[in-house]
Amino acid sequence: MDKNTSEFQVTRRKFLKMAGIGTVAVTALGGASGILAGCATSSDQQDWDLTADVIVAGSGAAASAAAVTARQQGASVIMLEKSSVIGGTTSKSGGVGWIPNNFALRDQGIQDNKDDCIRFMARSAYPQLYNANDSNFGLPQHEYNLLAAFYDNGYKAIDFFMEIGACQFTQSSLLTDYVDHAIENKVMRGRGVAPLSPTGVGFGSELIRQMSEWIDSNGIQVLTSHRVTQIVVNDEKEVIGVVATTTGNDTVAVKARKAVIFGSGGFTHNPELIIQFQPGPMYGGCAVITNEGDFVYLAQSVGGQLSSMNTAWNAEIPLEPALQSSSTPNDIWQPAGDSMILVNKYGLRVVNEKRSYNDRTKVHFYWDPVDQEYVNQILMMVYDQRSLDLYAGAPGGYPMPAPGTSAPHQISGQTLSELGQNIRARIDQIAEDIGSWRLDNSFENNLEATVSRFNGFANAGIDADFQRGVYPYDVEWHENVFSIPAQGTMWPLNDKPNITMYPFASEGPYYCILIAAGTLDTCGGPRTNGLAQVLDTKENPIPGLYGAGNCIAAPTRYYCGAGGTIGPALTFGYVAGINAAQEPAR
Amino acid sequence: MDKNTSEFQVTRRKFLKMAGIGTVAVTALGGASGILAGCATSSDQQDWDLTADVIVAGSGAAASAAAVTARQQGASVIMLEKSSVIGGTTSKSGGVGWIPNNFALRDQGIQDNKDDCIRFMARSAYPQLYNANDSNFGLPQHEYNLLAAFYDNGYKAIDFFMEIGACQFTQSSLLTDYVDHAIENKVMRGRGVAPLSPTGVGFGSELIRQMSEWIDSNGIQVLTSHRVTQIVVNDEKEVIGVVATTTGNDTVAVKARKAVIFGSGGFTHNPELIIQFQPGPMYGGCAVITNEGDFVYLAQSVGGQLSSMNTAWNAEIPLEPALQSSSTPNDIWQPAGDSMILVNKYGLRVVNEKRSYNDRTKVHFYWDPVDQEYVNQILMMVYDQRSLDLYAGAPGGYPMPAPGTSAPHQISGQTLSELGQNIRARIDQIAEDIGSWRLDNSFENNLEATVSRFNGFANAGIDADFQRGVYPYDVEWHENVFSIPAQGTMWPLNDKPNITMYPFASEGPYYCILIAAGTLDTCGGPRTNGLAQVLDTKENPIPGLYGAGNCIAAPTRYYCGAGGTIGPALTFGYVAGINAAQEPAR
Repeated sequence: MDKNTSEFQVTRRKFLKMAGIGTVAVTALGGASGILAGCATSSDQQDWDLTADVIVAGSGAAASAAAVTARQQGASVIMLEKSSVIGGTTSKSGGVGWIPNNFALRDQGIQDNKDDCIRFMARSAYPQLYNANDSNFGLPQHEYNLLAAFYDNGYKAIDFFMEIGACQFTQSSLLTDYVDHAIENKVMRGRGVAPLSPTGVGFGSELIRQMSEWIDSNGIQVLTSHRVTQIVVNDEKEVIGVVATTTGNDTVAVKARKAVIFGSGGFTHNPELIIQFQPGPMYGGCAVITNEGDFVYLAQSVGGQLSSMNTAWNAEIPLEPALQSSSTPNDIWQPAGDSMILVNKYGLRVVNEKRSYNDRTKVHFYWDPVDQEYVNQILMMVYDQRSLDLYAGAPGGYPMPAPGTSAPHQISGQTLSELGQNIRARIDQIAEDIGSWRLDNSFENNLEATVSRFNGFANAGIDADFQRGVYPYDVEWHENVFSIPAQGTMWPLNDKPNITMYPFASEGPYYCILIAAGTLDTCGGPRTNGLAQVLDTKENPIPGLYGAGNCIAAPTRYYCGAGGTIGPALTFGYVAGINAAQEPAR
Repeated sequence: MDKNTSEFQVTRRKFLKMAGIGTVAVTALGGASGILAGCATSSDQQDWDLTADVIVAGSGAAASAAAVTARQQGASVIMLEKSSVIGGTTSKSGGVGWIPNNFALRDQGIQDNKDDCIRFMARSAYPQLYNANDSNFGLPQHEYNLLAAFYDNGYKAIDFFMEIGACQFTQSSLLTDYVDHAIENKVMRGRGVAPLSPTGVGFGSELIRQMSEWIDSNGIQVLTSHRVTQIVVNDEKEVIGVVATTTGNDTVAVKARKAVIFGSGGFTHNPELIIQFQPGPMYGGCAVITNEGDFVYLAQSVGGQLSSMNTAWNAEIPLEPALQSSSTPNDIWQPAGDSMILVNKYGLRVVNEKRSYNDRTKVHFYWDPVDQEYVNQILMMVYDQRSLDLYAGAPGGYPMPAPGTSAPHQISGQTLSELGQNIRARIDQIAEDIGSWRLDNSFENNLEATVSRFNGFANAGIDADFQRGVYPYDVEWHENVFSIPAQGTMWPLNDKPNITMYPFASEGPYYCILIAAGTLDTCGGPRTNGLAQVLDTKENPIPGLYGAGNCIAAPTRYYCGAGGTIGPALTFGYVAGINAAQEPAR
């Protein structure tokens, strides 16, 4: 089956059908389990097309970090990228990495103490386990060790990449972490580092550009349109290579003298894995479309142990574009606007719209025990002409249509009542794609009351229901990043006591975009240890197999601040690279 | 490590520590992955201690059904039970099996049409996917097939067990399904069947008693205190036996000429798997303590594909007993009483207290994006002296202390304010076991207001917040099963318009029990097909390996009505037994 990216562009319904056939997606992974569980292939039997010390799957932050590090340690390296282009989801991202005790903090004389930092991460990632008085903060040893390994290696990784010239970094901003009022967060600002380009702070594409330049200059071969479909082990169950399948359906056997490192993506675009592992309905996300959970299957086929499959780096996404292709151009980081709310099927607000994407999105997973449904499966982002005109062009404006453009996913109405009716009509149109979820009969009436109540909050500056604008994240990221207003419109800027809220205009038009849960990417997969080795069901490393990034069970599990995915990806890519290069040749 | 049940009785904190060591729990599974991923053991190399055509792990409903069926088909059978006693969680249960189109419905002339029934199950288990106009109702093919296999085989299994005299059944009741107002549920009553004893309707212990009698009379060897710690495969990757470890730490190699069937339990008592796969904090449940997810690890070690790991058969449990031992004597099916509410850390109601256990418990998993915590991690069940006196002895009275007894987990206060303070003091005492969750400062004040608001609802008969008592489940199960009032107390019976609600007494004492999420058992594990064969990552059956019951990915995934676990367990145990007996001898 030809798997170039354009053919990945299928609608959600088609995708579910594909998942339904089951074998379609999975058979594409070739004889992975056949070989590995079957021991049918060994080093003696396999004809190799290519050989290197270290084989790296993927080409985003984790994979690039691993390749660079292994190469710098003296290993020869081949990178295999499933897509026709390099960079993975990193290349679409902001490029920030959340790195405790990073060079910038140290330069500023800010103590990011190890014990305090692990305590904070433990409290954030495992609130149900956190014990302030326990030496491991209540965590099982494995989870504690991973947090410690992240702390210990993150800043060293950044220092290393800067030192060898693989990528230069700078502090990305001094805006607050997403965990903005936990007493355990002793360093609320400054853990984010971003690639530094000659012209200033760069995005993820700059990180990839610099890493890629180093990779090309240092003799690392990068094969795009090569999807790893098989992990090859020898009779001792050591991983000795992979088989990749090209766009033209050729197979390429690549020997790894020392190790194979997966730095590939998660399973955002595998609806079957979403259903079976994630806590509620999700419709895709900004992860590149090639992130279909390949390593979840491949790791299981060699006896790898899955972990952290119940969570993701969540963000909201616009529903209707996601129904067309689950890989959305962008995610909704913080819905733009101040005269803007999210309401559910009853026309009621259910969340502080200005909370961080990862936290906010979890409300889509609430189960209603009376009506036995995911009551917030779809939320309606409702705003007025003023917010559209002021904020659609802001950095957080997506998915509002950019100024001067229109978008079919934007629903409008001259009055709130008309808007409600038009939302209802739209939902009828897409009914076959959204399960049994429907607007409640009370929606239109409640919507008017909800807007009126919100207007009262906006005038008073106090959101009595959901604390919007109370804590620093809401305000700082609204004001400085996502909702910077356009200049020169006819509309008044926000002069109310709480900058995140402004009363809706008394006259329409009003607008709505249907919103659903999505991801930056998932963060479950095979379990690794602090050396980035993939573990089997006995917690023993599978010799020669490493993992980092969104394809593995996230060592951190929680999104403490900007860069929560790329920070650990760079860190454990680096750790994997160091350790892979030190493996004995096989 | 000696694993008799008394040694399993460890506190939650100890248990987390054990999980922390990681290898403790997992190493007990011996060289499972070593052998299986390693092909180190084959039929030629293994010395077998015992041999039968079919080896069955477990001895609850699924395992017993499998053993009986395989034996009746002519296979010799050995059963291996980890505990020192047989029956698993089934023996603690109500013994009801939810079986569409069962003999009783047919006898009554009630049509339980296949297409309608699958439609209903699809709508219930996958509301986010359900498409009324699709031939598979919006489901992927695999999930559709499993529902169809359940429908097709469930009633045949029951007929079969009755016909061969393995167990007699009767309709358990005509109370409503838990899905009590979905238009897709065409047969709202009567799908539950229960074991029929000589003296009437029996419980799970009666099911086990009858099955066990048949098992003993038909030459099936049952080895208790034998924990399966290894699955043995031959060079062709066919499963040819298991290794079990006894209480005395001896290993017993048991050859399976035809097949191995796992009918064992889930992973309720494995805190590491709960953290990594379940959607929120859980503290145990009524599942027997031996249900530690052994098959999750063993299946992964032979390349089995995990599925349905994100859900469980949920029920609430009393927190403090669960902190002592995660295997609680019972679950809270429907909190007893009418002058009784559940409140959260803010002293606010968050759920219709009378909804079915599986649905109601999901509210414990709500994530609060502002305070970044599981806001309902612990709920407070609050009631007055009247409800205690009238309902503590009712079938749903647990965990209220039985009449004439006291229980340390019951907190009391002469006033609501004093109760609130005593709750706060109790939470301080157990603080190290409950993560960072704490009562909010508003708790005591809000509690009084909440009780007052509830009293208004009770007098009016209408719960304007959570629809308590609106739908049939709430009322029928309250009135007829869980909250049958004691006779002859000093208290007035409920004469209010809604029998599920009664105003709290204006004077104390008042009581509280801390409540947390738990399970009957989990329902994730290796993925199976409609023949109960365990599937690998390519969706191909692993030859000779079958699964049924709570140890596998639930084919039904949702708890539609009473018997939602045992119905599928009996069904797929039967399916596994038929197919295992037909395997070629190896």
